[in-house]
Amino acid sequence: MAGYAMNKDDYLKRLARIEGQVRGLRRQVEEDTYCIDVLTQISATSAALRSLAVGLLDEHIRHCVTEAAIGDDQEEANRKVTEATKAIERLVRS
Amino acid sequence: MAGYAMNKDDYLKRLARIEGQVRGLRRQVEEDTYCIDVLTQISATSAALRSLAVGLLDEHIRHCVTEAAIGDDQEEANRKVTEATKAIERLVRS
Amino acid sequence: MAGYAMNKDDYLKRLARIEGQVRGLRRQVEEDTYCIDVLTQISATSAALRSLAVGLLDEHIRHCVTEAAIGDDQEEANRKVTEATKAIERLVRS
Amino acid sequence: MAGYAMNKDDYLKRLARIEGQVRGLRRQVEEDTYCIDVLTQISATSAALRSLAVGLLDEHIRHCVTEAAIGDDQEEANRKVTEATKAIERLVRS
Repeated sequence: MAGYAMNKDDYLKRLARIEGQVRGLRRQVEEDTYCIDVLTQISATSAALRSLAVGLLDEHIRHCVTEAAIGDDQEEANRKVTEATKAIERLVRS
Repeated sequence: MAGYAMNKDDYLKRLARIEGQVRGLRRQVEEDTYCIDVLTQISATSAALRSLAVGLLDEHIRHCVTEAAIGDDQEEANRKVTEATKAIERLVRS
Repeated sequence: MAGYAMNKDDYLKRLARIEGQVRGLRRQVEEDTYCIDVLTQISATSAALRSLAVGLLDEHIRHCVTEAAIGDDQEEANRKVTEATKAIERLVRS
Repeated sequence: MAGYAMNKDDYLKRLARIEGQVRGLRRQVEEDTYCIDVLTQISATSAALRSLAVGLLDEHIRHCVTEAAIGDDQEEANRKVTEATKAIERLVRS
């Protein structure tokens, strides 16, 4: 089971909204919208994606990492922390 | 005319690809894909959006800002630089 | 005990290096170094700080969060995950 | 002359403050401050550095880029825009 299982519907709704934002961006470019207005919309879309990623990281640490720790599988817990850290690093640089 | 006019088709192609990436994210969540794999795909999508934004900023500075400067409209050039700086700030924090 | 206790010396060395980078930045500005070269040095300093932050987050999750989870204090573990998530959010936007 | 010449004193003051923040970070680690509190201070320091970088970019575009454009040296103006864009890209990823 994925760490975000309990909030799956919420994530799907947010992703549908983000898809709509990207479609809005295409429309803006098609209609030759002023660069700065397109950039404002890109920042809003990026922020929505980031916020989603932070939410998934929270669920991953809250469920996947702690379950491995509680399950006394120290190696598995360590592996999951390393995965989380690498995901944080990728996110910060993306 | 928008600053990105000359590369409009390229931007539209990149946005179509980003829309596909977001649809891929929805599919991943629907299929309960492991959190970390969803996060990897979010980072790739974010990076694509960022790269698009940096491209638009480049065009804005290269065309809109310098045209206003060359056109001897110092006030307009200053206004456009301020807009660009605020867009950079929003981008960095998004 | 702090989560980073085992690597404290390493963190102190990295912070000393970052302090040196900031002093280098002051020298650059004092000597009227070209804007772009100052910006390159700022990016290097930021990246060093980010990398330090990701390291501390790793230690926090690896030690503080999992210890609370193992210690069967679910509430404490949850509180520590929330702290970590908020720290990730601040980091991503800083 | 550097693009930030007119605000040099302000930049030097801000850098002195950032140096103080990094020294504060060293003290925190020396005193085994709780990871999350160190991370909060790192985010504040990163934000101060970012804000400085955005300021320098603004000056670079406002002075160096537009002067090259006004000076009718289109090639030089283009080169300076490319430098600015690369600096933005480094900043966004740092």
